[in-house]
Amino acid sequence: MRANVRFLREEKMEELSNTESQPGGEAMDGELLSRAERRDQQIQRILEAAKTCFVRSGFQGASMQQICAEVGMSPGALYRYFPSKEAIVEAICEADRQDDMTCFGALRDATSAIDGLVAGAMAHITHTSMKGSAPLFAEMRSESMRNEAIRATVDGHKGEVAAMIEPLIAEAIAQGEINPPVELPILMAVLMSIGEGMAINDLPARGVPLDKLEIALRAMLEGMLRPTKSTPAAE
Amino acid sequence: MRANVRFLREEKMEELSNTESQPGGEAMDGELLSRAERRDQQIQRILEAAKTCFVRSGFQGASMQQICAEVGMSPGALYRYFPSKEAIVEAICEADRQDDMTCFGALRDATSAIDGLVAGAMAHITHTSMKGSAPLFAEMRSESMRNEAIRATVDGHKGEVAAMIEPLIAEAIAQGEINPPVELPILMAVLMSIGEGMAINDLPARGVPLDKLEIALRAMLEGMLRPTKSTPAAE
Repeated sequence: MRANVRFLREEKMEELSNTESQPGGEAMDGELLSRAERRDQQIQRILEAAKTCFVRSGFQGASMQQICAEVGMSPGALYRYFPSKEAIVEAICEADRQDDMTCFGALRDATSAIDGLVAGAMAHITHTSMKGSAPLFAEMRSESMRNEAIRATVDGHKGEVAAMIEPLIAEAIAQGEINPPVELPILMAVLMSIGEGMAINDLPARGVPLDKLEIALRAMLEGMLRPTKSTPAAE
Repeated sequence: MRANVRFLREEKMEELSNTESQPGGEAMDGELLSRAERRDQQIQRILEAAKTCFVRSGFQGASMQQICAEVGMSPGALYRYFPSKEAIVEAICEADRQDDMTCFGALRDATSAIDGLVAGAMAHITHTSMKGSAPLFAEMRSESMRNEAIRATVDGHKGEVAAMIEPLIAEAIAQGEINPPVELPILMAVLMSIGEGMAINDLPARGVPLDKLEIALRAMLEGMLRPTKSTPAAE
């Protein structure tokens, strides 16, 4: 009962902080944040706290209470934003989606399929390393093997990345630019596995320089895609 | 207290089963198992039960009690074999070591570095898929990111695999058989990442035929290693 009283008090404070001016509720220019902006800010804080807890304790080990403690929010307030840990993971993936669109958007503008894949992979590896997301990727992947909701989210996310890459490879094959030795679905399965292994290993953090990594990636992709025309960057 | 009494009774039965003839204590030919054989058999049962629990509940979520329930053994008996979950993981890795030695032993007998790597990787992928070890690999990898004992075990295991592969690639470079575009330590880091991504994804279980996977792997390795001599299998 004491715990409930304490939580109710914190929730009340939380509500006050949504409407009243206080340091956390003001934008840098001193203007009051709108209710929607304040809500977005709270959601971002929850997602960051949840990532920290998932990496520290594992998805199974991290409780909603631990996430509350990490973000400094009452369970009542947290559950208003997210009904479950699965819902938090879905929101984390949704936030990552925009980043991935940017990383793999490079594919569309590239002058060759290999240049596009190298640029997209390098952007993704660099971004993952800078954000320190590798442990979270590994945790979500292992949780996806026993949790259907997480599996649906993780597979959906990977499916979207594959759906950005596959048509561009198909087009390059159709135009005779590349000539892979295996069918497209098999090529995609292998490429996605390789991408996952690279993301989980965070090679830049292990001291692999980005320029060397790019050379190795390009050599690997040239072997798998067998380009039939030379491009300036491939020479 | 009741639980303790129950456990003590089970432990007593356990002890009896170590020395007396009963169905579980007899070998197929009807001879009594020696104490050492019985001990090995118990250890195998514990390791299999622990794998099941780790995959089902995660390393954090699986308790020693759950492992006891899965194997049908008292905590007193289990702790006589393993003092912790970390010790169980170490024993699982030790058992895997022999399998890996066999898989990558193919490297030494191969006529070329690429043939050896393809054969070793295919043996490892096939073996991992048949044993259904991918979820356990993923779980151990993610646990290794927050648990120093597990990290030491997992890194030690990967280090041994790398130590089998690296000298053979170094020798092939020295003999002018291959000419990778990056230095050996970078090549090894990339190859090990790729191997991990493939192991975690269990491509055969996803419907990728082994013969197609071998073709894709060979093309990828030829791109990264740049063979300078053609070998019969590489044509």
